[in-house]
This record gives sequence, C-alpha cells and structure tokens, in this order.
Amino acid sequence: MVQAAFYEGKEQIRIGECIPVQPAAGEVQIKVSHCGICGTDLHLFHGKMDHRVHLPQVFGHEMSGTITALGEGVKGFALGDRVTVRPLDPCGTCAACLAGHSHICYHLKFIGIDAPGALQGLWTVPAHTLHRLPDSLSFKLGALIEPLAVASHDVRLAEVARGEHIVVQGGGPIGVLIGLVARSAGAKVLLSEVNPFRLQLAGELGFETVNPRQTDLAGYVNAWTNSAGADVVFEVSGSAAGAEMMTKLPRTRGRIVIVAIFGEVPRVNLFQFFWRELRLLGARVYEPQDFESAISLASSGTLPLERLISKVTPLDGLEAALRQLESGGEVMKILVQCSQD
Amino acid sequence: MVQAAFYEGKEQIRIGECIPVQPAAGEVQIKVSHCGICGTDLHLFHGKMDHRVHLPQVFGHEMSGTITALGEGVKGFALGDRVTVRPLDPCGTCAACLAGHSHICYHLKFIGIDAPGALQGLWTVPAHTLHRLPDSLSFKLGALIEPLAVASHDVRLAEVARGEHIVVQGGGPIGVLIGLVARSAGAKVLLSEVNPFRLQLAGELGFETVNPRQTDLAGYVNAWTNSAGADVVFEVSGSAAGAEMMTKLPRTRGRIVIVAIFGEVPRVNLFQFFWRELRLLGARVYEPQDFESAISLASSGTLPLERLISKVTPLDGLEAALRQLESGGEVMKILVQCSQD
Repeated sequence: MVQAAFYEGKEQIRIGECIPVQPAAGEVQIKVSHCGICGTDLHLFHGKMDHRVHLPQVFGHEMSGTITALGEGVKGFALGDRVTVRPLDPCGTCAACLAGHSHICYHLKFIGIDAPGALQGLWTVPAHTLHRLPDSLSFKLGALIEPLAVASHDVRLAEVARGEHIVVQGGGPIGVLIGLVARSAGAKVLLSEVNPFRLQLAGELGFETVNPRQTDLAGYVNAWTNSAGADVVFEVSGSAAGAEMMTKLPRTRGRIVIVAIFGEVPRVNLFQFFWRELRLLGARVYEPQDFESAISLASSGTLPLERLISKVTPLDGLEAALRQLESGGEVMKILVQCSQD
Repeated sequence: MVQAAFYEGKEQIRIGECIPVQPAAGEVQIKVSHCGICGTDLHLFHGKMDHRVHLPQVFGHEMSGTITALGEGVKGFALGDRVTVRPLDPCGTCAACLAGHSHICYHLKFIGIDAPGALQGLWTVPAHTLHRLPDSLSFKLGALIEPLAVASHDVRLAEVARGEHIVVQGGGPIGVLIGLVARSAGAKVLLSEVNPFRLQLAGELGFETVNPRQTDLAGYVNAWTNSAGADVVFEVSGSAAGAEMMTKLPRTRGRIVIVAIFGEVPRVNLFQFFWRELRLLGARVYEPQDFESAISLASSGTLPLERLISKVTPLDGLEAALRQLESGGEVMKILVQCSQD
C-alpha cells in the first residue's frame, strides 16, 4: 500500500492510504523517496497554520523522488527522472510577480501548506517546480536541497565575499547550512547558539562557536574582527535576544540578514543603523538559481551534509519525529522515508 | 566687535566677544556669514550633549562664509574665497576610515559639537573640510548646503531612480530637502507629516501630502502605487509611530532609509522584512561628493530653497530662535547672521 501522512487538526497525524492524483496538463506525479521535516511543518502540526490548510492535509516540502507520470504538455522531463521540487506556486500577475519577485508573490501558494505536500508515496505537482537531481546525489541528500537552497538564497542576497567575517545567530539546520554555504564562498564563519548539542556539532564542522548566554558575543566578535566588526550577521534565531544582539556586531555598512520568522515584533536599535550606516535585508525562500546552486554545491561533495541528518524514519514514525523536534534536544534534521527506492 | 554665541550649560546662551583663532598649519579662518540652526543644536541647547561639549562651547555647523586667513600649507584656497564647511574630522586610522567610511569614523569629531562651531564671526577649521560656493549662490542658501548634503547622501544611498514612488515620513527641513532631491532625481514624492504648517508648506511645494493621524497612510500609499507599494520610505520622524508605519508601505524588495536619530529603541516588524524581502539602511551625515551634489543642485536654481527659510535673525536672537524651534509651531529653518557681508 502506498501511504500518506494526514494532518487532521492540531497535533493529530493519521497515517493512511495515499490517494494518487493523476497529473493534469503541466503537472507530474512523483514517487517521493525522502522528505525532511522543517520548523514550518512543526508549526503546522501545532495548529498555527489552520487558517491556510485544508483538512485532511498532507504537508511536507523538503523532498527527493522519481517521476512516475507526466501530464499533457510537460517538456524536458521523463519518467524515471530523479527530481526535487521548488514548492512555490506564484500567481504570475501581481505587482511582485511583475517586478520579477515571483518567489514572494503577493498571492503565493506554498505547496505543502496551501496545497498538498510531499509526506506521501505519490505526489502530484506543477512541472514548473521541478529541478533535476544528478545520479551522484543520494535521495537522502536530495531531500536537503530545499533547505540548502534557502541558505544559498540568504548568502547570495547578502553578497558574502571571500575573506569576510560572518556571524550566524542560530545553529539549527538553516543556520548551519548558511554557515556551510558562506564558508564555501570563502568567508570565515562564527556560529552563535545556545543548544549545547548543536553548538558541539557546529564546532565539529569547523566553525568558530559561541554560546551567547555564556560569552559576551559582541566583545568576542570585536576581538575576532580586530575591532572592525562583522561584515554580515545572519539572524536565524527569531528571538528578542537575537534582534537585540544583531545590531551590536556589524562593522560600518555591515549587513544583517533576517532569515528567521519573527512571531513577535521585537525592539530593534534603529539608532545603530543610523550610527554605523548598517544595512538590513529580509530573505525569504528561494529563486530557481538558488536551487541550481544548492544542487551543484551538494553534488560537489565538499559539504558535510550527512552530518546534519540526525535520523531517517518511516512515515509511521512522523509523529514521534515531530515530538522529538518539539523537545529541541539533540536533534538536527530528521528525514522521513516515504517510499522504498 | 566680532561676536560669538557661547553655550554655558543647559539652556544657557551668552552672546559675547568672539576670540579669533589664528589658523595653524592646514587650517583656515573664515568670516562666518550665515549659520542655520538644526535639531542637533536644539538637542545640545537642551543639555543632551554635555558629555561631548567643552564649556563655554560655540556650536553651529550649517554655514556659509569667506576665507579671512590661511594657515601654512593650505593649497587650493585663497583669501576671499566663498566657502561652506563639511564639519567632519575623522581619525584616519580606525577600521571605518580604512574601509573608506571616514564620514562615520569610529572616533569622528563633529565640528560644532566636539570642536568649536560656526555661531561666531570668525571661525577656524581644518582646510580639508572646505567646499567652494559659487558666486551665484547667496550666503543664505550657502548655509543650507549642509542639510541639503544630508538629503543628497540619503537619496544617493537609497539609489532613488526616475519614476519611483517615494514616501518621506517627517516634513521638517531634512524631510522636505529629501523630497526635493528625490523629485529632482525624477521620483514621485509623498510627504507624511502631522504639523499642519509643515504639511501645508509641503503641499505648496508640490508634494503629495498625508497627515497620518487623519488618513490611513498605508491604504493611501497602496492606492497611490496601484497596490504595488512604495519603492523607498525615508523615516525622518524618529517616532515609534514612524517605525511601525515604515514597514507597512514598501513593495517587495522596497527600501527603508533611517535618517532620524532614534532616542528610544522602537519595535520593528522584522517579519515584514522577511515576508517582502525589504531592505533597510541607515544614512548618517555625508561624504564629500554629497556636498558637491548639494552645491550643484542649489546653484542650479531649480529647488525652491528660499521657501524653507522661516526667518533670519542676528546672533543675539539665537536663544529666541531656539525657543521658537522648541515650540515646534510654524517654523522650518532659521538662519543666524553671524557677521555683516
């Protein structure tokens, strides 16, 4: 039996039979191999996205798989192609789309929230979302392409340059991936994190690490940069403490990138923006080139991506996996195997 | 008698005899014609900069005048040259200076606060601060070059382009000058202000105007931009309300420029930066090219700069002028005549 995970209301997951959808014109059906669980999925599990989902909702969007059926008119892909999905479905007509920012379309459908997701054996999506995975890339690493594309987008918008000093506030999967992408661009990376497990992993990956509850991060960065200040700060913690710290670290005209989704409106020291002519930019999801960069980088074999995978679980282990992520202990990325390869 | 205005402690001004300083090597002495009063001067008068000044302190820094003496080694300027001063004295050796950001040097001396200012008949300054005023530019307009250079810096850093929709939050002298510079760059300008006098003046200058206490500014901007959102928002109000409003106005990847000096740390909606990939940048003082742009623009005669001058007063009217600015009523820029032309 082909299975699917259904979200049926706050903290209720049911594993049941997948209902395959024949691909319409311009769509493809994919046999999903692996699907990663991200913070947004946990948020959804907690009922925080009930205004967007349709029960019973299949969620999940960090995946790898193989094309099993092609709708009419799909060009450039064939049955059996190994792919991942860029889970964005923009309207194409709003001011954001017309300005070339369709990835942050004013009416964006995020596939896996606003449309059925990947935590099922067979998944049907628009063909415009596809990116090909090279044979050399395992399906497990293929399921990391989506978060790696987030990190690639963040580092690209920040215009990280060789030799720059980068601080990443928050050492979860996205923070660590940002660190890896920035380092591959030639930057020196310091990772700030309060979770001891994540801090240790970051250290093992070769990053400079600081626990900001134990060490004066601003003083540390000042010494690390010979009193110049950091070139770029990535704020991935989403915390009031992170929002307060982020303006203390950059050099004159240094950049701060808002990657985190802030649930509350924090205080931000706008005087410091004036005083040092700081720049801040928000970065959300990804554009097609970020997926291509991520696939290229993952395929190069130079990033220790396997180290980020804490566990691989079958579909019926999804709820336990969500509980483990919720507890926030010794865990990074958990992958769900949605079908046998 | 050549006069000077001395700040002698919180809200205490004494008009007394100017003590001329012979210019040392690399310095010039200037007969000050006019000097404008800005918000920083009012701040200083209120005792808020007592940690930086040396009593009795001559302040003021928005000026025009004529060179009366040259120190050893000064090249490129002669007695009688009409000039204005870029009142910045950077250290030249800190990380900011070495990065090419000497205008926001980590140890910047602002002349008029950290060193004697222009509210006196004869003023001695480093020659590296000088910019020549063309004969066609009156000394009154020459005293507006410094704030116009602030506006030129702000508009330049914001990369304002022809046809863009610009919102300026705050219609004091700097806000209006930003509007004028942006309009001369081909932008459409909307000015948001709560003071009825300033709002009316902005309307007479041809700007779109909104009182955000009476009109839903976000809705107005949405309609004004055909649902796209503003390209750039200049936050010049320094208020919590301004910090809240500024993130509601821009389009995807729109820019917000922090021009105001925020005395308190406001709440800022970082989620909106993420959601629309907004960009924010602080802009402080000016670089040499901004003074040259300002002089060129003022000399072109295309800006209605005279309309910004509410009053010209002699030195002994300085305290009354500060009180008038403090009251915040029907006033824009007040100039002090420091000597007879």
